[in-house]
Amino acid sequence: MKILVVNAGSSSVKYQLINMDDGSVMAKGLCERIGGTGGVGHITHTPLATGKEKYSSDKDFPTHAEAIAAVLEILTDKEYGVVKEISEIDAVGHRVLHGGMEFTESCIIDDAVIAAIERCIPLGPLHNPANLLGIKACQAVMPGVPQVAVFDTAFHMTMPPKAYRYAIEKKYYEEDHVRRYGFHGTSHRYIAQKAAEITGGVHRLINCHLGNGSSLCAIVDGKCVDTTMGLSPLAGVPMGTRSGDLDPCVVEYLCNTHGYTVSEMLTILNKKSGVLALSGKSSDFRDLEAGANAGDEDCALALEKFAYECRKYVGAYAAAMGGVDMITFTAGVGENSDTMRARICDGLQYMGVEIDEEANHQRGDVVDITGKNSKVKVMVIATNEELMIAKDTEALVLAAK
Amino acid sequence: MKILVVNAGSSSVKYQLINMDDGSVMAKGLCERIGGTGGVGHITHTPLATGKEKYSSDKDFPTHAEAIAAVLEILTDKEYGVVKEISEIDAVGHRVLHGGMEFTESCIIDDAVIAAIERCIPLGPLHNPANLLGIKACQAVMPGVPQVAVFDTAFHMTMPPKAYRYAIEKKYYEEDHVRRYGFHGTSHRYIAQKAAEITGGVHRLINCHLGNGSSLCAIVDGKCVDTTMGLSPLAGVPMGTRSGDLDPCVVEYLCNTHGYTVSEMLTILNKKSGVLALSGKSSDFRDLEAGANAGDEDCALALEKFAYECRKYVGAYAAAMGGVDMITFTAGVGENSDTMRARICDGLQYMGVEIDEEANHQRGDVVDITGKNSKVKVMVIATNEELMIAKDTEALVLAAK
Repeated sequence: MKILVVNAGSSSVKYQLINMDDGSVMAKGLCERIGGTGGVGHITHTPLATGKEKYSSDKDFPTHAEAIAAVLEILTDKEYGVVKEISEIDAVGHRVLHGGMEFTESCIIDDAVIAAIERCIPLGPLHNPANLLGIKACQAVMPGVPQVAVFDTAFHMTMPPKAYRYAIEKKYYEEDHVRRYGFHGTSHRYIAQKAAEITGGVHRLINCHLGNGSSLCAIVDGKCVDTTMGLSPLAGVPMGTRSGDLDPCVVEYLCNTHGYTVSEMLTILNKKSGVLALSGKSSDFRDLEAGANAGDEDCALALEKFAYECRKYVGAYAAAMGGVDMITFTAGVGENSDTMRARICDGLQYMGVEIDEEANHQRGDVVDITGKNSKVKVMVIATNEELMIAKDTEALVLAAK
Repeated sequence: MKILVVNAGSSSVKYQLINMDDGSVMAKGLCERIGGTGGVGHITHTPLATGKEKYSSDKDFPTHAEAIAAVLEILTDKEYGVVKEISEIDAVGHRVLHGGMEFTESCIIDDAVIAAIERCIPLGPLHNPANLLGIKACQAVMPGVPQVAVFDTAFHMTMPPKAYRYAIEKKYYEEDHVRRYGFHGTSHRYIAQKAAEITGGVHRLINCHLGNGSSLCAIVDGKCVDTTMGLSPLAGVPMGTRSGDLDPCVVEYLCNTHGYTVSEMLTILNKKSGVLALSGKSSDFRDLEAGANAGDEDCALALEKFAYECRKYVGAYAAAMGGVDMITFTAGVGENSDTMRARICDGLQYMGVEIDEEANHQRGDVVDITGKNSKVKVMVIATNEELMIAKDTEALVLAAK
């Protein structure tokens, strides 16, 4: 099977074509500036399967439909294509941000699923409409090809009420569906499976998905029991530009002090906060490391704060699960920053966590960095949400046959 | 020395007269409904030193000044008094909620201190004005008697930036003074001192002050390094009627869905949330226990959620301090609910915490509930904020002589 994985944002479409025989990426690319936001549209495309160079071109994308059409065109292009005909693509897997309380797992898209994703728009106002545009564009240009929705929230739906309920009136949960949902679920699930594969099974796992957006997840026997993000991806540890957890009174205080509306305040907390705000410099952890090494105290504080909040959540989740057997690091920062991994694990010896300094410097898709006296296994595992989406898509399409 | 301890709220004044020779409470009482809020004013007074019965009477209190005058009158009353003359009272210690970044310790009140407390009103809009009314009323009726301010926030001013800074723009910290302050500082400090006294010194302590308002505090060598409350007392674990930590997006979502202003939302989060909201029944943990025992699932969830969030913070603070040597429970729920203590400690064996079930059922001002295999000392210690305020007052007055 060949599966097209689509991640549609408000003005972009990211894609990968995956060959399920070996899980290899045949091609990947990105359509940007759909709808003309920020300039003329642009597509970049890398046909990995043929070894050809990257293709890059300006192209007008009035809507997502034209972007998806351009993707299919380049995938079948004589020079840059990786398949001969569109009909070689067996199915499409879509990343969908918010499945609300409607979805506990991935599913084949039909009218009822689209209606349910639409009902979740209030919970994912920025992402769900874009995800739907991607789905509808694929349906239009690939009629009859099965489409599957894979939700960022679904993996977390196994949380117990003590973890997902907020201490607010029940009606806000029952009528408004306000609860902890959690995100990055596809990545957390991928790592949980991979960790179990590698070790032959893991009982209590804490996965640290640390990137521009970051979340930690407590996983017992492969099932999520708690996670740091909440109703929205704003909660939890500080991120590139997001504040993470905050006394809700801060929202009121700054609204009153500066005359912000609550939505203006939330935009600030989502886009102008996190390590970007603490450092005053950058949301990129490489810049922060460079700054801190050059003596910039704000950069140093940003790194310290991030590590501190991550470490506290590792401690909290160990307490939540009655201990921890394995800690994994993944995503941009988790996979690439040995110093951040070391900072986070520093001081966790009391709970049996020690990392091997030398192993921690190594790079690879799977690196065991467990210290020799550590009772808790610590590993770096590269995440692969696209492969997870493709696997779900394959399984659902095969099951439906 | 005899010290009057005053805790002035917006429509009430609580007081204790403490004999510093032995720390005994000579008399204690409460003036309610100052300003006629909720009916005619009322004073209750218990003259513990004389063993006389409780005195209780309706009395009109147009302002805090009349309430303080009534307190002094009853303290020197022929029948219900405990001193002959007002001049026997050597000093007055005032509880002040918010010391902002102005106060790192208690201090003798002069015009500059009053001005600084006034500057902190935006941070403590409900409490600081009332605290000032109490101070000014005492100054008016007891001219020349030294007055001392003891701040709920002061103990927490030793936190490092990684604990007190939020991941938001620096200007909000530097110009608006938005940061984690923490509260219950006088109680946390009292317990830290008492725990050190009892054990001969404690390195890493987690104090759980659990009452109608609840906060946990991580204390290294007697100094606060982190605490659960934030800019305001709303943050941290769920409380009687407060939500505790929340994805800030919940504020925006409910404002938009229900048309609440941000201040209306904050009132809901402060007064109609917490275990009251989860249970739909009561903010009193005894009612919740009774409800849960009778099979009420909402009461059971409220208790579970509260214990779960407390346990996670215990885990987080152990991670923050690189381990923990002692855990203490104090305040209404912490001192009186053996079941809640057991729930919180359940599952913490991995970090060497075990409690003795039998000892946990005992009552007393100091009860050692450490399990026989526990590596971490666990104790119940009754808090005494009034005594702490009186001690600070005595020390400052003696030093100023």
